[in-house]
Amino acid sequence: MGLAASIATYPDQTDGLAPLLALVAADMAGVNRIILDKAVSDVELIPELAHHLIDSGGKRLRPMLTIASAKLCGYGGECHVRLAAAVEFMHTATLLHDDVVDESDVRRGKRAARLLWGNQASVLVGDFLLGQAFRMMVDVGSLPALKILSNAAAVIAEGEVMQLAAAKNTATSEESYLAIIDAKTAALFAAAAEVGAAIAQRPDAEAHALRAYGRSLGIAFQLVDDALDYGGDSATLGKSVGDDFREGKITLPVILAYRRGTAEERAFWARTLTEGVIEPGDLEHAITLMRRHKAIEATAERARKYGEDARAALSVFRDGPAKRALLDVVGFCVARAY
Amino acid sequence: MGLAASIATYPDQTDGLAPLLALVAADMAGVNRIILDKAVSDVELIPELAHHLIDSGGKRLRPMLTIASAKLCGYGGECHVRLAAAVEFMHTATLLHDDVVDESDVRRGKRAARLLWGNQASVLVGDFLLGQAFRMMVDVGSLPALKILSNAAAVIAEGEVMQLAAAKNTATSEESYLAIIDAKTAALFAAAAEVGAAIAQRPDAEAHALRAYGRSLGIAFQLVDDALDYGGDSATLGKSVGDDFREGKITLPVILAYRRGTAEERAFWARTLTEGVIEPGDLEHAITLMRRHKAIEATAERARKYGEDARAALSVFRDGPAKRALLDVVGFCVARAY
Repeated sequence: MGLAASIATYPDQTDGLAPLLALVAADMAGVNRIILDKAVSDVELIPELAHHLIDSGGKRLRPMLTIASAKLCGYGGECHVRLAAAVEFMHTATLLHDDVVDESDVRRGKRAARLLWGNQASVLVGDFLLGQAFRMMVDVGSLPALKILSNAAAVIAEGEVMQLAAAKNTATSEESYLAIIDAKTAALFAAAAEVGAAIAQRPDAEAHALRAYGRSLGIAFQLVDDALDYGGDSATLGKSVGDDFREGKITLPVILAYRRGTAEERAFWARTLTEGVIEPGDLEHAITLMRRHKAIEATAERARKYGEDARAALSVFRDGPAKRALLDVVGFCVARAY
Repeated sequence: MGLAASIATYPDQTDGLAPLLALVAADMAGVNRIILDKAVSDVELIPELAHHLIDSGGKRLRPMLTIASAKLCGYGGECHVRLAAAVEFMHTATLLHDDVVDESDVRRGKRAARLLWGNQASVLVGDFLLGQAFRMMVDVGSLPALKILSNAAAVIAEGEVMQLAAAKNTATSEESYLAIIDAKTAALFAAAAEVGAAIAQRPDAEAHALRAYGRSLGIAFQLVDDALDYGGDSATLGKSVGDDFREGKITLPVILAYRRGTAEERAFWARTLTEGVIEPGDLEHAITLMRRHKAIEATAERARKYGEDARAALSVFRDGPAKRALLDVVGFCVARAY
């Protein structure tokens, strides 16, 4: 059973992204205006490179979480829009640095910025966007929001370093892998959701609930991303299937296939991922091994489980359009690209 | 007349760094404790790489400016120590990213971190230190201080991108060069000094004076740094003489030598800096051309002028040990390494 089939059987096929998109449409227009406004600089290279990534149409899932969370908490001001834009800038900065670190060639279906302007410009424009993100947060003036987002910035970098240290190491445990994606991906989802409660000055229980929601959603999102790298199609993903394989990235599908594999199969993983010796047909063979050991389905199953946790975390909130949108986006994240 | 001789004639030979070191000694012990404490992470690679740079004994000039400025403003709390540590982390993060961008081999007299742990780790640990810097600032809880330092973060990155865009371009104007060093170097000196006034909640006039002081001092510091790259000795500098030359970095000594040079000399600069074709003896020839056109002395002369501006900016403050220390450090920066 492939990933598409295994996911199709989940009870997650709700309206997906549509309710969230409808809920945040007006505010996201504001977010997008701020993003364009703050990617401006007299230094030409900055807007040029930043726009390459900004205009390439990411989903803007993280800022949408901030907007929807603020709405869920009954927030009536304007600051959520600026915080949402800051969250997206933090994410964009991470992508620029990620591509340099991973030596990626494709991002969001376009050539990676580092190939067009060089690694150096990608590092520095990433730094600029991170600086702008902090400026925007400081302008909002909410110390609780600043605390949440500055924590996330440090934790994300920690997660990226953990991932780098684990690269090519097939002995990486499932626990280590989860710690990595918790930090590199889920920390920003958690922070994006939690700041919505923070600026609405809601009780701690609601802030914690939104944090737990974002964290579980982020883990589910990354699990699916890692599964798709061995089973999705490039056009939908906006990246190449097999990127993780070629980079020697140790993700859950690999960990499971390795653990469940024969000595001969483990030798294959060691050659391809640890030694980086990849021959024609190796990616296909890797996918065959994963199917044999149901590594993709098991990864998708864990994603579904984290998706359930995300939904459960929202039980403290009353029903309504914001809650509906946040519940439904879980289905989108777990079943995305299908 | 060489740089050493030209600088020796300046009336800047005050006590130099000594009064500042004495003034801030107790507080800097606290800063150093925080630096060690905040470079900690469960991710082993982070403290390992961070300590390589932290332990290699930079002067910690920027955090000393924060401490001294706070004292000058009569600040009686503890927050200046944490802000000073954050300033040093911002600087350390910049150094890590700089070395990746410049492909430097040596930093503070040691092998650059990127050579020991790779460019990837340097980018990510730099991101971590920047994240930690923001966490520390947020913990202090002063929105004015956060505003000053987050602005600096974005401006520094802008300056680095400007420098990258100007690299290898011998037609770079003196004005462009000054804009670059104003952003990449002076912005952090200015912010480091200004936050001292911000947390002391002093009137704007004092904050502006300290900002102007830090800015002029930072420009003077960078001018001398750029002069030393063609005239200092490697052991004192902690970097190799000729680094800028080999990287095709367009600094003021180059701009002046190029502008004042013959057609043949300009062809030499174009070959070495623009085309990057460097042969044995070229660095020595570059230094000869700079001596011929008094490019190093003229750079040092401008540094002296900015040093005067820095001193003049402090006229709004009453005399005392803090003012004395800040006045004397100007002499150290202008005449350092001699």
